[in-house]
Amino acid sequence: MSGPGSFKNQTMSKTGNRAAILECISTAGKIARVDIAKVTGINPATVTAMTSDLLEEGIVEALPDEEKQNTKRGRPQVKLCLNSKAFILAGAKISEDAITVAIIDFAGNQISEYVREGNSFSISKEQLAENLKEAISAAIANTDFYLSDISALGVGVPGYVDIASECVHWSPAISDTPTNFVKTLRSVFDFPVMLDNDVNLATLAEQRFGLGKGVSDFLVVTIEHGVGMGIVLNNNLFRGTRGLGGEFGHTKVQLNGALCRCGQRGCLEAYVADYALLREADTAFKFKTSHDLPTGQRLAALYQEAKSGNQAALSIFERAGRMLGMGLANLVNIFDPSLIIFSGERMQYDFLYEKDVLEELRKNTLDIDRPPPEVRVHKWGDLLWAKGAAAWATEYVIHQVVAKTNAC
Amino acid sequence: MSGPGSFKNQTMSKTGNRAAILECISTAGKIARVDIAKVTGINPATVTAMTSDLLEEGIVEALPDEEKQNTKRGRPQVKLCLNSKAFILAGAKISEDAITVAIIDFAGNQISEYVREGNSFSISKEQLAENLKEAISAAIANTDFYLSDISALGVGVPGYVDIASECVHWSPAISDTPTNFVKTLRSVFDFPVMLDNDVNLATLAEQRFGLGKGVSDFLVVTIEHGVGMGIVLNNNLFRGTRGLGGEFGHTKVQLNGALCRCGQRGCLEAYVADYALLREADTAFKFKTSHDLPTGQRLAALYQEAKSGNQAALSIFERAGRMLGMGLANLVNIFDPSLIIFSGERMQYDFLYEKDVLEELRKNTLDIDRPPPEVRVHKWGDLLWAKGAAAWATEYVIHQVVAKTNAC
Repeated sequence: MSGPGSFKNQTMSKTGNRAAILECISTAGKIARVDIAKVTGINPATVTAMTSDLLEEGIVEALPDEEKQNTKRGRPQVKLCLNSKAFILAGAKISEDAITVAIIDFAGNQISEYVREGNSFSISKEQLAENLKEAISAAIANTDFYLSDISALGVGVPGYVDIASECVHWSPAISDTPTNFVKTLRSVFDFPVMLDNDVNLATLAEQRFGLGKGVSDFLVVTIEHGVGMGIVLNNNLFRGTRGLGGEFGHTKVQLNGALCRCGQRGCLEAYVADYALLREADTAFKFKTSHDLPTGQRLAALYQEAKSGNQAALSIFERAGRMLGMGLANLVNIFDPSLIIFSGERMQYDFLYEKDVLEELRKNTLDIDRPPPEVRVHKWGDLLWAKGAAAWATEYVIHQVVAKTNAC
Repeated sequence: MSGPGSFKNQTMSKTGNRAAILECISTAGKIARVDIAKVTGINPATVTAMTSDLLEEGIVEALPDEEKQNTKRGRPQVKLCLNSKAFILAGAKISEDAITVAIIDFAGNQISEYVREGNSFSISKEQLAENLKEAISAAIANTDFYLSDISALGVGVPGYVDIASECVHWSPAISDTPTNFVKTLRSVFDFPVMLDNDVNLATLAEQRFGLGKGVSDFLVVTIEHGVGMGIVLNNNLFRGTRGLGGEFGHTKVQLNGALCRCGQRGCLEAYVADYALLREADTAFKFKTSHDLPTGQRLAALYQEAKSGNQAALSIFERAGRMLGMGLANLVNIFDPSLIIFSGERMQYDFLYEKDVLEELRKNTLDIDRPPPEVRVHKWGDLLWAKGAAAWATEYVIHQVVAKTNAC
């Protein structure tokens, strides 16, 4: 994306520099001034002046660089990091059966976590907002802080979220869509609320805390109640040119194929998501577990069936694997990424069909003289999604700080 | 891609500024200094200083702005454009039966064009280089210039081209791939040669001269011997994070589907490209035209069959349309673009299946409360591809000029 053919629309106002420096420090964790200048391309003198202001304002703090303390030359180099005490941020991940909350400080350290069990999908936006408030309040009650100390909240919901218009076009979590759910949340909380598609925030979590740390371009694929994708291009979360891209789960793998819960046919999700696997299980053999059990338990039972050699159960995972491999191959043919991260809790079932996924991926991508993209699996639960949401609240505060204190 | 979640790696060295100013002028055609500052985000004083140098060096020239001449205030505003006399550039598009060449000046005005008939696919790289030299020589012979006056040549070939390694991994045009075809071309020409996938250069042509002018994000889809895609994101041609993305024609629309000429199964191309349509025609009914005829003529005959109501011929175009619509829907679900341009010569057959394409596209994309992306059709032949190749040579020269004259 550089050299001939590239033309970046570069904006380098003071606001832009300040935000770029803060985001650079936030992404790096801790970083020397000279490296901030290198990474951002901002003049070293400007970096020095602006970080002085940020230190004085208590937004950034200086740490002696342990690695460099024993060098002979001059005074010891210091590294800068966000001042952990500057702000408290909250993040929440809404899933079918729980709301998971993380409270972090400005430097990204976790202060508290809380899981509010007993959420259910397709409830009213008002009820969901109340459930969220309960969860956040319980999470902050475990700490020395009050609800009013929170500077911003990031919330991840499954579904189609347009962050520009704040519109949730559709979500399995909310019964009354399309709706401006942020407006509802604003009436419940006294601090700013940032809403996004949960997979985008999981991607942010991978970038800040996970396998995507330090990688400029990668894809995150999540499989749980649905199939999601996050796209990082040139260190940016790419949301589609109009804000609603990355709908990997609704790319079609079969003309007029299986019915998807979105109402369309042939979506990848209709072959590999939780509900698709369980639907198949219902058809193919007498599925022993009750329909009243939570999805996770039903899926675990199906997984046990497959593991103990039930051919029908095995074939369900096998087809899912092949369809997923085909869908992934399409992403590789389009993006040519160096890294794909399979991320989320369901990755525990992956090994059942991993071979099929990777084989189909290999068969369907361009065969050239270099290695295919690396595929890494990251098994983790809702907490990291919540931390991703909190990281997004951090970015919001960074931009607010910049806006508030921008003198010129 | 801006606001929270965005972190641009901004490099603003003097080289970068000079290149950004020149590319801005090149893209705009003619533009006032104040607007250069706005578009590039470069300080107005820096723009004034740098454009003075460029004027003095004869790379840029100043034109009185006709629109502003009648305003009352002060001296008349001038607009800057690239100095047409500064450089001569050549571009070539290699297709199955011809090599098409465009010679342009530095401002993008066409000086000469030439079509060398009688090319054929899958010939040796040396033979292809000789054919190219013949074509370029014939094109320049129509002008007041000599071959040695050409500053750079852009060449578009179908296939998989990695511009970083200069490797043509596979191309229907060249028999001995993988190969460094640029190296072969360098041994034939005395000026720099830029090679790229032909669809990327068609996309550049749409951006510089066509329907993509002034649009920051769009997709270009071409259907001819193969199915290609060009991706423009934030004014940049996106080549995939490792340089080999955008292979839309080889995204899979059917697990284990029709055999593609790439050797894989279920590629979109295997349903909608020229050879796929003709292969179907061979099977479904006695196809009247000889196999010895060029592809274009055979396709024209098939098109006539469909137009005159042959149901088998019609069903060939119908299925192609539905598969194409499904493939496009996948792009929309991933990129959420505002504009898709159907580009190229084959678009003349489009109206036969346009309804099916658009219907399938609509059925398979997210149904939200805003219009689907605009789909525009641009029918043109190989000459505009060649101009796109020449525009790429222009960008190369812009970067060379910057490198050569960059004092600090």
